[in-house]
Amino acid sequence: MTRPLIIGVMGGGSASRTDLQHAYRLGELVAGNGWILLNGGRNSGIMEASAKGAFEKGGLTIGILPDDDVRQASRYISIPIVTGMGSARNCINVLSSDVVVACPGGSGTLSEIALALKCGKNVILLNYPEENIFAPYRHAGRLSYAASPEAVIAQIDAWVQSVLQE
Amino acid sequence: MTRPLIIGVMGGGSASRTDLQHAYRLGELVAGNGWILLNGGRNSGIMEASAKGAFEKGGLTIGILPDDDVRQASRYISIPIVTGMGSARNCINVLSSDVVVACPGGSGTLSEIALALKCGKNVILLNYPEENIFAPYRHAGRLSYAASPEAVIAQIDAWVQSVLQE
Amino acid sequence: MTRPLIIGVMGGGSASRTDLQHAYRLGELVAGNGWILLNGGRNSGIMEASAKGAFEKGGLTIGILPDDDVRQASRYISIPIVTGMGSARNCINVLSSDVVVACPGGSGTLSEIALALKCGKNVILLNYPEENIFAPYRHAGRLSYAASPEAVIAQIDAWVQSVLQE
Amino acid sequence: MTRPLIIGVMGGGSASRTDLQHAYRLGELVAGNGWILLNGGRNSGIMEASAKGAFEKGGLTIGILPDDDVRQASRYISIPIVTGMGSARNCINVLSSDVVVACPGGSGTLSEIALALKCGKNVILLNYPEENIFAPYRHAGRLSYAASPEAVIAQIDAWVQSVLQE
Repeated sequence: MTRPLIIGVMGGGSASRTDLQHAYRLGELVAGNGWILLNGGRNSGIMEASAKGAFEKGGLTIGILPDDDVRQASRYISIPIVTGMGSARNCINVLSSDVVVACPGGSGTLSEIALALKCGKNVILLNYPEENIFAPYRHAGRLSYAASPEAVIAQIDAWVQSVLQE
Repeated sequence: MTRPLIIGVMGGGSASRTDLQHAYRLGELVAGNGWILLNGGRNSGIMEASAKGAFEKGGLTIGILPDDDVRQASRYISIPIVTGMGSARNCINVLSSDVVVACPGGSGTLSEIALALKCGKNVILLNYPEENIFAPYRHAGRLSYAASPEAVIAQIDAWVQSVLQE
Repeated sequence: MTRPLIIGVMGGGSASRTDLQHAYRLGELVAGNGWILLNGGRNSGIMEASAKGAFEKGGLTIGILPDDDVRQASRYISIPIVTGMGSARNCINVLSSDVVVACPGGSGTLSEIALALKCGKNVILLNYPEENIFAPYRHAGRLSYAASPEAVIAQIDAWVQSVLQE
Repeated sequence: MTRPLIIGVMGGGSASRTDLQHAYRLGELVAGNGWILLNGGRNSGIMEASAKGAFEKGGLTIGILPDDDVRQASRYISIPIVTGMGSARNCINVLSSDVVVACPGGSGTLSEIALALKCGKNVILLNYPEENIFAPYRHAGRLSYAASPEAVIAQIDAWVQSVLQE
């Protein structure tokens, strides 16, 4: 195989200054190695920063857009792939990457880590939190734990009641 | 909206005896409440057990198959939806569910939890491990941590070398 | 296999009165035979009419929505499957159907006929025009014919010029 | 927008000598214009020929693979995008192209023409048959016409009987 490596860089649509700097630098290094950078294509957060780093270093950047309109692509994406598939495109992100690097992000990034593992890819986490991954969602009341099927049903019932009262 | 609730039940293609019993019981309870059970459709693990529980209680069961062939469906699935999309169908599983329940499973189940949160669904974890989610993949050498972009590149280089020596 | 047949009914989001009547009647007949009706799920055209016919006859109706929001479903759909994948869901429509019936429609319906043939499904065209399928698109200037690669390039060049002048 | 045009070239996995020559020449011309060639990525028919023409002229070639394995890609594809989605990737082919050129092919190619029109793309048919598109499928007994809903049901019944007798 003589194709250049494709390095997938995942991460949040919004990110801390440090993580954005890391993503930019990672993009530079990917391009400097003669590799191709692939990400989710949009003009925000880790996507924009990593594409910018690679693009400004003269590298090739591929963006797999969830949208059906190429105008959502970052201007640092040399090759926008327009899927129109929403988060189902996360699968394509990881299947098309030789290695998947995940920077900090939310549930979309977590899904990409999981899908990459599912597809048998090697995954490298860059400053990604090691634990308490679900904690923010639990605190927001969007994820809960149950110890029995009956407890699950009770929680669904409670949710239905809360929705009915809205 | 007078449609019955659709309860998505996710979980591993292989599972412990306790988790299979939980899944079967959960299926019974979902059907007993007049709700529809939705899962990944295959004839194994949590999918088969939860579908069987609902089906034998007279409930309606929907299976969203990753395959392009309906013969992969569990016989306890009343309505097989054939996607031919592999893990990209995980998105459909969660988008089509009013509530997502996750039993223990591997990376596919984790991707469904993440995608459900991404889509704004309520998620209930039934006996799902609270932490150390990535530990098995880390121990298997398929997931690693890095603290800097340079460390990421070093890890990719090491991986490339190991592949070249195979 | 003892599952009821799933009959996919495709057709335009807008349709003539006759075609809507046909779709409604077809829905009635599908339900009357104890079969399940599957369509694109939206509340317009052939989709709405065929679902209504089956639903009012007491049949089960499945709608495979292109949207990521179940509120786009027709109220005659008993089971909405939410894909969030746009026209990529057309593949699921035909893969999930045992037989595909196409009523008159536009390019979306034509894609479903083609995909059904690609997937090896039997296709029945109900009052569908036998020929001149591309004529409307040709007349609208959106489809053209070329006899050589050079002619293709000339047409692309002309299109680029027209876009630049807009 | 300063990105180079992306020209999608669709067509059969097997093709006549003339059509293969056309596809190769078209690839050369696309690359010669500084445009990017995009196709279905596999190592056969129009896909292989058009990629080869562009690749040997020094152009960039993108292949949107239906498979989940990059090894299915033609060696003339510089950037393989691995979707694992089967024919659902046809949508991505056309959404990602600025102009869609269709060479002769089967039902897959027809679906791409239709999806391109659905997505509002300009379509150029290169030596594509102007009419009798469904004739081969009709002759093979896989596509039929009906003039009423009742006739549709009669045809489904006949098909069910034939399957039962197999």
